[in-house]
Amino acid sequence: MKASQFFISTLKEAPADAEVVSHKLMMRAGLIKKLGAGIYTYMPMGLRVIRKVEAIVREEMDRAGAVECTMPVVQPAELWEETGRFDKMGPELLRIQDRHGRDFIVQPTSEEVVTDIARQELRSYKQLPKNLYQIQTKFRDERRPRFGLMRGREFTMKDAYSFDRDQAGAKASYQAMAQAYRRIFDRFGLKYRAVAADSGAIGGDLSEEFQVIAATGEDAIVYCPTSDYAANLEKAEALAPAGPRPAASQPRTLTPTPGKATCADVAELLGVPLPTTVKSLVLATDALNEAGEPQGAQVWLLLLRGDHDMNEIKVSKVPGLDQGFRFATVAEIEEHFGAKPGYLGPLDLKKPVRIVADREVAVMADWICGANQEDHHITGVNWGRDLPEAHVVADLRNVVAGDRSPDGQGELAIERGIEVGHVFYLGTKYSKAMDATFLNEDGKPAHFEMGCYGIGVTRLPAAAIEQNHDERGIIWPDAIAPFTVVLCPIGMDRSAEVKAAAENLHDELLAAGVDVLLDDRGERPGAMFADWELIGVPHRVVLSERGLKEDQVEYQHRRDTSATKVAVADIVSHLKEKLAA
Amino acid sequence: MKASQFFISTLKEAPADAEVVSHKLMMRAGLIKKLGAGIYTYMPMGLRVIRKVEAIVREEMDRAGAVECTMPVVQPAELWEETGRFDKMGPELLRIQDRHGRDFIVQPTSEEVVTDIARQELRSYKQLPKNLYQIQTKFRDERRPRFGLMRGREFTMKDAYSFDRDQAGAKASYQAMAQAYRRIFDRFGLKYRAVAADSGAIGGDLSEEFQVIAATGEDAIVYCPTSDYAANLEKAEALAPAGPRPAASQPRTLTPTPGKATCADVAELLGVPLPTTVKSLVLATDALNEAGEPQGAQVWLLLLRGDHDMNEIKVSKVPGLDQGFRFATVAEIEEHFGAKPGYLGPLDLKKPVRIVADREVAVMADWICGANQEDHHITGVNWGRDLPEAHVVADLRNVVAGDRSPDGQGELAIERGIEVGHVFYLGTKYSKAMDATFLNEDGKPAHFEMGCYGIGVTRLPAAAIEQNHDERGIIWPDAIAPFTVVLCPIGMDRSAEVKAAAENLHDELLAAGVDVLLDDRGERPGAMFADWELIGVPHRVVLSERGLKEDQVEYQHRRDTSATKVAVADIVSHLKEKLAA
Repeated sequence: MKASQFFISTLKEAPADAEVVSHKLMMRAGLIKKLGAGIYTYMPMGLRVIRKVEAIVREEMDRAGAVECTMPVVQPAELWEETGRFDKMGPELLRIQDRHGRDFIVQPTSEEVVTDIARQELRSYKQLPKNLYQIQTKFRDERRPRFGLMRGREFTMKDAYSFDRDQAGAKASYQAMAQAYRRIFDRFGLKYRAVAADSGAIGGDLSEEFQVIAATGEDAIVYCPTSDYAANLEKAEALAPAGPRPAASQPRTLTPTPGKATCADVAELLGVPLPTTVKSLVLATDALNEAGEPQGAQVWLLLLRGDHDMNEIKVSKVPGLDQGFRFATVAEIEEHFGAKPGYLGPLDLKKPVRIVADREVAVMADWICGANQEDHHITGVNWGRDLPEAHVVADLRNVVAGDRSPDGQGELAIERGIEVGHVFYLGTKYSKAMDATFLNEDGKPAHFEMGCYGIGVTRLPAAAIEQNHDERGIIWPDAIAPFTVVLCPIGMDRSAEVKAAAENLHDELLAAGVDVLLDDRGERPGAMFADWELIGVPHRVVLSERGLKEDQVEYQHRRDTSATKVAVADIVSHLKEKLAA
Repeated sequence: MKASQFFISTLKEAPADAEVVSHKLMMRAGLIKKLGAGIYTYMPMGLRVIRKVEAIVREEMDRAGAVECTMPVVQPAELWEETGRFDKMGPELLRIQDRHGRDFIVQPTSEEVVTDIARQELRSYKQLPKNLYQIQTKFRDERRPRFGLMRGREFTMKDAYSFDRDQAGAKASYQAMAQAYRRIFDRFGLKYRAVAADSGAIGGDLSEEFQVIAATGEDAIVYCPTSDYAANLEKAEALAPAGPRPAASQPRTLTPTPGKATCADVAELLGVPLPTTVKSLVLATDALNEAGEPQGAQVWLLLLRGDHDMNEIKVSKVPGLDQGFRFATVAEIEEHFGAKPGYLGPLDLKKPVRIVADREVAVMADWICGANQEDHHITGVNWGRDLPEAHVVADLRNVVAGDRSPDGQGELAIERGIEVGHVFYLGTKYSKAMDATFLNEDGKPAHFEMGCYGIGVTRLPAAAIEQNHDERGIIWPDAIAPFTVVLCPIGMDRSAEVKAAAENLHDELLAAGVDVLLDDRGERPGAMFADWELIGVPHRVVLSERGLKEDQVEYQHRRDTSATKVAVADIVSHLKEKLAA
């Protein structure tokens, strides 16, 4: 490809609304162009990256036995009403009425459509397993689209859906996809982790996120550097402390803590470590009687160590909280505790509450909590002596770096990641909602066991840039670079020799199957180099009159700090070696 | 590819709503699946065809110097308000409001978005010419979607847009696209014609439709078998008759024609040829005065030969009718003619009207027309003697087979076609509406000269089927077949020899780059052959135990009436020869 036949458009400055580095660099490098909030044109340079991502995804999906189809972008609401998602999904689901006033949506995913296909087309267990995928435009009407392709409204997703006759089959399909995803992410040339994720109400361990590691990532990912353990923060288990609860050594003491409403403030005032404090979180559940009428709220007190954070997913699995919960109202708190938030605790309650202690809190001795009295805390609190054991002891908190790994193989570390893939075992959630069945070996109808598997095709380039950039611009991995090699001839317009050498090398590399671009725009060297460093083409060859006199060109990888002189005769093999590396 | 790893789903009967053969066969062969009116999933078998169409289109667009991008499916209304199309386009344009109540549309084409890109990105004449294209989902909310992919609502279109500095450049870009289209349609392996089309208000001859020839086509296409002339029916000119008007030979005679309100009925009653009759069509224009107020209607009488049909495009170019016209109301007709439709004519008018005669009528003598008296016509009417010459003589009619070719090289023939491509010179229509300019050589802003170029990517397979099918199913051209070769082993489940031979041949053909499918489903021969004849794979190889004993397999092209025995050792070269043909 020659630059003069392509579309190159770089900017000195990123637009003001670009907050993160990938958004800034994608705009500056001319990869994307904003059309509206969260809606972008994929410009030629950006589309080349997306096409390479698509090609790798497609190859590995095909290799894993998935079959490609394309489902409609605009979908009738009827199917979405069958699963209840038309009502449940809220304003993220873009809704349309056609000229006849019928309801449609723009697909955010396609579980309904693919399940409808399966219930019509897959009639017998003999046709199973099947895995259908598409690489297609999606839309989610984000409340606050931002970060360019990272959280856009219109985007391209690869979504695959597996159909199996039983759980064992579904798990095999899931594992095949998880393996295909590893191959895909390996091929992208990015540092990533496959982390266990919460699978919600369906249960089991069959949910993994594929996270591209980047300091700017939105997600915290937990891993064990000395084992294979990796999970997202929602999922990562905090083990119960190893030792037994120490004996009580301090008296229970009412201690004035005027104006100190947080654990950190109390610890500072009292000159004690933060982990000796316990924070109180008050939740409520609204029970219904058998007739479905509200029965008044049940109030819950969650106790976590002062330096720990509540993990909502874990809390939502505590028996009694697993049907939904909310934070208690101030009125409910005052009714049960006789005090305002900031000084709450499990002692001297006005009305009984259900007490749930985090595993860590359950083995603490001589701890500090609110006194249910404004401006006061109690120190030296001890289970058994000052209050009965908690009603429930559970893992309620986010893990922190240094926690023991759940596999017992070391200590946990935490890093940031960007979620670009997800594999998920769905069970019969959709097949039951839509009564999608096949005939099993006994000739009886059975619901499909399903899985779903997504890759954010247009999000991936953004994640790749968050991971791979410097102050000059993007640094693409070879596999998804818009061009793998750029030829920068200096003075091509004045030197017939440079022109001929550049064009020969271009043709030779093309013939060798190298994705090369010849910059024949006639830009000055400084502007030309700056453009390609911004765009991030990984391999650059500079041809100059002076160099060619010595039969040399200059090779430089985008990460190199200086160029290497290479004989003209050797440059093709030199590049091939670099590309194979 | 093996059938067991693919998705094959054929139907014995087409669904009741499938009216045309391509729709029936696409549904029966499992190429598409209906999700809603005019909305289809492209099933794996159909998507393979579409991907081959896309690949050919992409290669030739790239070769012609166009650059691919992808514009959003969901587009903000603002740009569409700049060109006025948001209001003008009517209910075909699918409109959406997002969660904030802002107006959006689903793209039917992308002139607005691409012109917006050009006005921001193409700042200098040095960057021109540029041609941007995309292959992307479109939506048109057809009032009555039907015929499957032929007139769907959601579809895939390749749309390209060229930007040039002047008309000469735009015409060169247009010609380059027209040539690329010829290469594309040649490669599809379909019989097609590129026909001149009307370019509307923009004028010039720079509009061509690419029509796939099919007896079931919606469009009449006009061509000259002895020259290159080809045009669509709207555009094809009916030359003025060669000879002079004959002298009058009959007296003007009021003739009773009770109940005979059509030319055909009158000709039959009077025992004269239909071409001696003249039909009267009454139009009206609503003139405005300088203040823009309605000035009362002007009534027009169009005279066409009894056997000719009015061509609305041609009528809309008659001076005075070129700002819009409508059919006259019955009240207007009675006011001017004193009679009801069916017996109208240009003689004995109650109030003057503007008379426009078709070129053919203008040279007729002794003709028959309505008498402006119920149940009466006048015979022996002659220009000059019975009425003054027409105010306007113009080409008002559709050509018919046998008319002289406008290029003077022979007689016109008419066949049916399906429009699958269109190249169009736009001029400055969009660039002026959106004030899209670049700086020309003098440093002054100038409006882009544009062209637009479309191919109906998902319509093309339907057109291909309309042209290529028989009573058993589809017959794909090699280039766009879902698979080029199908291997049908008989008794693969019982014969290790058949299985081994089939798998070897499959692997060998794959290695040779042949797009082959091995039917390993274990279907009986009859069902298996019927499936592949329905699906329309062009080349079939049957492997059987008996044949293999004699070292033979059977080759049959989908169009062949019987199979040919080929030695196992020769079958790969035999196939390669057939594929190259």
